[in-house]
Amino acid sequence: MQPYELSLAAAADAIRARQLSPVELVDSVLDRIEKVEPNLQAYVTVTAEQARREAHEAANEAAAGRLRGPLHGIPMGLKDLINVAGVATSASSRVRTGHRAEADSTVAARLTAAGAVLLGKTHTHEFAYGLTTPQTSNAWDRGRVAGGSSGGSAVAVAAGAATFSLGTDTGGSIRVPAALNGVVGLKPTYGLVPRHGVTSLSWSLDHVGPITRTVQDAALVLAALTGHDPRDPASLATPAVDYRPGAGAGAGVDLAGLRVGVPSNYYFDHVDAEVEAAVRHAIDQLQALGARLVEVEIPMTRYIQATQWGLMVPEATAYHEQTLRTVPELYQADVRILLEAGELMTAGDYLRAQRSRTLMRQAWAGLLDEVDVIAAPTVPMTAAAAGQETVTWPDGTVEGVSDAYVRLSAPANITGVPSLSVPVGLDTAGLPIGMQLLGRPLGESTLLRVGHAYEQTQPARDLAPVA
Amino acid sequence: MQPYELSLAAAADAIRARQLSPVELVDSVLDRIEKVEPNLQAYVTVTAEQARREAHEAANEAAAGRLRGPLHGIPMGLKDLINVAGVATSASSRVRTGHRAEADSTVAARLTAAGAVLLGKTHTHEFAYGLTTPQTSNAWDRGRVAGGSSGGSAVAVAAGAATFSLGTDTGGSIRVPAALNGVVGLKPTYGLVPRHGVTSLSWSLDHVGPITRTVQDAALVLAALTGHDPRDPASLATPAVDYRPGAGAGAGVDLAGLRVGVPSNYYFDHVDAEVEAAVRHAIDQLQALGARLVEVEIPMTRYIQATQWGLMVPEATAYHEQTLRTVPELYQADVRILLEAGELMTAGDYLRAQRSRTLMRQAWAGLLDEVDVIAAPTVPMTAAAAGQETVTWPDGTVEGVSDAYVRLSAPANITGVPSLSVPVGLDTAGLPIGMQLLGRPLGESTLLRVGHAYEQTQPARDLAPVA
Repeated sequence: MQPYELSLAAAADAIRARQLSPVELVDSVLDRIEKVEPNLQAYVTVTAEQARREAHEAANEAAAGRLRGPLHGIPMGLKDLINVAGVATSASSRVRTGHRAEADSTVAARLTAAGAVLLGKTHTHEFAYGLTTPQTSNAWDRGRVAGGSSGGSAVAVAAGAATFSLGTDTGGSIRVPAALNGVVGLKPTYGLVPRHGVTSLSWSLDHVGPITRTVQDAALVLAALTGHDPRDPASLATPAVDYRPGAGAGAGVDLAGLRVGVPSNYYFDHVDAEVEAAVRHAIDQLQALGARLVEVEIPMTRYIQATQWGLMVPEATAYHEQTLRTVPELYQADVRILLEAGELMTAGDYLRAQRSRTLMRQAWAGLLDEVDVIAAPTVPMTAAAAGQETVTWPDGTVEGVSDAYVRLSAPANITGVPSLSVPVGLDTAGLPIGMQLLGRPLGESTLLRVGHAYEQTQPARDLAPVA
Repeated sequence: MQPYELSLAAAADAIRARQLSPVELVDSVLDRIEKVEPNLQAYVTVTAEQARREAHEAANEAAAGRLRGPLHGIPMGLKDLINVAGVATSASSRVRTGHRAEADSTVAARLTAAGAVLLGKTHTHEFAYGLTTPQTSNAWDRGRVAGGSSGGSAVAVAAGAATFSLGTDTGGSIRVPAALNGVVGLKPTYGLVPRHGVTSLSWSLDHVGPITRTVQDAALVLAALTGHDPRDPASLATPAVDYRPGAGAGAGVDLAGLRVGVPSNYYFDHVDAEVEAAVRHAIDQLQALGARLVEVEIPMTRYIQATQWGLMVPEATAYHEQTLRTVPELYQADVRILLEAGELMTAGDYLRAQRSRTLMRQAWAGLLDEVDVIAAPTVPMTAAAAGQETVTWPDGTVEGVSDAYVRLSAPANITGVPSLSVPVGLDTAGLPIGMQLLGRPLGESTLLRVGHAYEQTQPARDLAPVA
């Protein structure tokens, strides 16, 4: 096994045991990037020289017995909305040509302080405003979309071109590409991870979170990201938590007593049959581990789409107000249309969406009193062919691909509840399928425990078979 | 001294000492209402029969040795936006003709549980959307405005027609009429007092709070109002606090060590000379009590008015959306124009106001790190003549009366910080002047301590000399 194939936890164990040096690990992943990037285009920028320098420093520290923790010497990719001092934050957009970040974002600073080594900046759908990331190919099939908007981050992790990465999630942008590339993606509770220094799409829906190859790895990254930062007005003051599955009481793979909500509506409507079968099979595994399945009804489903778009569209336009006036021609057509649409929305439209969100949060709080987690498909279908614009469901309904990809992830953005996407197998075309686990606000530990318990019942996953 | 003249604390002491019965107190205040209402029109509805019944029950409980606390048997007026089961909530509007509330608001239920006796519902500027309350006369001069929107509540307390009352405050609506009628008004921290069952003007700016004759009385009422209620999405989960000045550590009239911020900008601009002199004299009293005066600069002042109106106007319109379409002719002209203006605002306008508020909150948090409280005029001038539309400042600037009344109170609504208005004397026309004390979020105890300490340096105030 090559170092680039190791999970974060396995690499950290090897570094701690002095069986692996940060230099070997970073070199192995940089070599892997060189090999797979021509086919994947996961990265906007690869900061190889800087990475090698930091790896040497990490190795020196390790040799001197100074390990900063589990992220010490671990190579990472950061979605190119996340500021790193001295590096461009391109947002995968021509609008940002010549950009150079003056200071680290909070998350970049925290990961660096924890010892992680930056490999480079990964592609996003332009300004995170889309679900496909057209520059990047799916790690499992070059003819298919990476998913988005954190497509580069998910593809890099799936292909061994990063040991972990960060994405952002406004309507599913961590979970969708994680599911479509067979990796783990966590959208934390709204406010848990500070967004200072991260380009905003829609500030009342934006989240930053990890993309990893295992649930345990997601826990290790999350622990380095949390903690109050007053520079993000939504940042919560929360105590430090050891998120590792197995760290707390009631840990381990036994899920006895856990109530798993299985939606009787919405989450299995207009879902591909193979996706549904794989997710229901995974839910059966949770039951076999001792969980009790409880049928739940998702509230206010007819308002989900209008609420998501009613909040996102005007907030995105407000962020881009200046450049939309001065350099509209630099945006891609799909993004520019959405931004211009936002200029036509009234305050009343936006306030209706805000009020709907308030009611939806209350209704979901009631729902999550009845169960500990909710299990559902992450996305209704596997990766679409590049360029495919719509999907036709068996009842004849035609749906836009992006609408389909955002449909099942949006509720967690609107309500702010945490959602963890875990891989649950492949369809007959060999494409990954994801299950999301949704939990109570600040219930990340429970989600990670359940996801980890499920993962332990499955054979170890291979990296994506990059052609 | 008649029972209606007693402060809440004095009445509570007398009831506890069995020197006064709730029946005597309520009868005395009801008689006073009958005497002064023809001149004041503070009440929309007087619930005399119900009040007498409740007074008897309170007297029976007291006779049996069961006292519910300091509000036991104390008669109150509630602004007519606050639901009381079985009674109309008219909002002083024809739109509400035939209304009947099905259930108590949270604050009405809490006050009733604490033993308070409802006298009736007090006039508001229609739907709280104005600063004058044209139905009601100032308690000190019938030819002058009551202030608003909680005009009826402030006038009733000032005239002895209620021992205390509740108002609501979206841009100054508790503090403005309190100042103009020589009584105490407290706008608590945003989220401290639940608003469930209270008609909304602008939900991100709305607050409910007490109007009383002394600072100590405000503390006694506040203690009965706080505590989380999930039916108000903004309601904070806060521990119960004994707000009485003198209850906590460091209490008493000595203000040694306290830093009082005195604004070098904004709060003394375009302020009547007599108002400025009275407030500066009161600030000198705080210094004489041991406080240290610190000059402070108010941040982002050029954005205050745009932010207040940018948030309030569309939120108010959203609340009235249905009735504005179906029965627009039932609104008063001034309110209808504001509601219709809200239909023209874009989502971008509203979002700019939201972002400005976020920045303003952060800037004020920094300001309130430097001082413990800020002392300033509540309103820039005393009560205007009824019908007066503008005020002309010495530099020739002409300002709308309502704009003038909202100008100094709006910052506490935008930022959510608590603000306590205390009377600081009369001008040469015999009209009351108010000083507001602004503090940190959830810093009510400090405000009440400072306000009480000031009050102790002054002779006892008389009731308004109702003609």
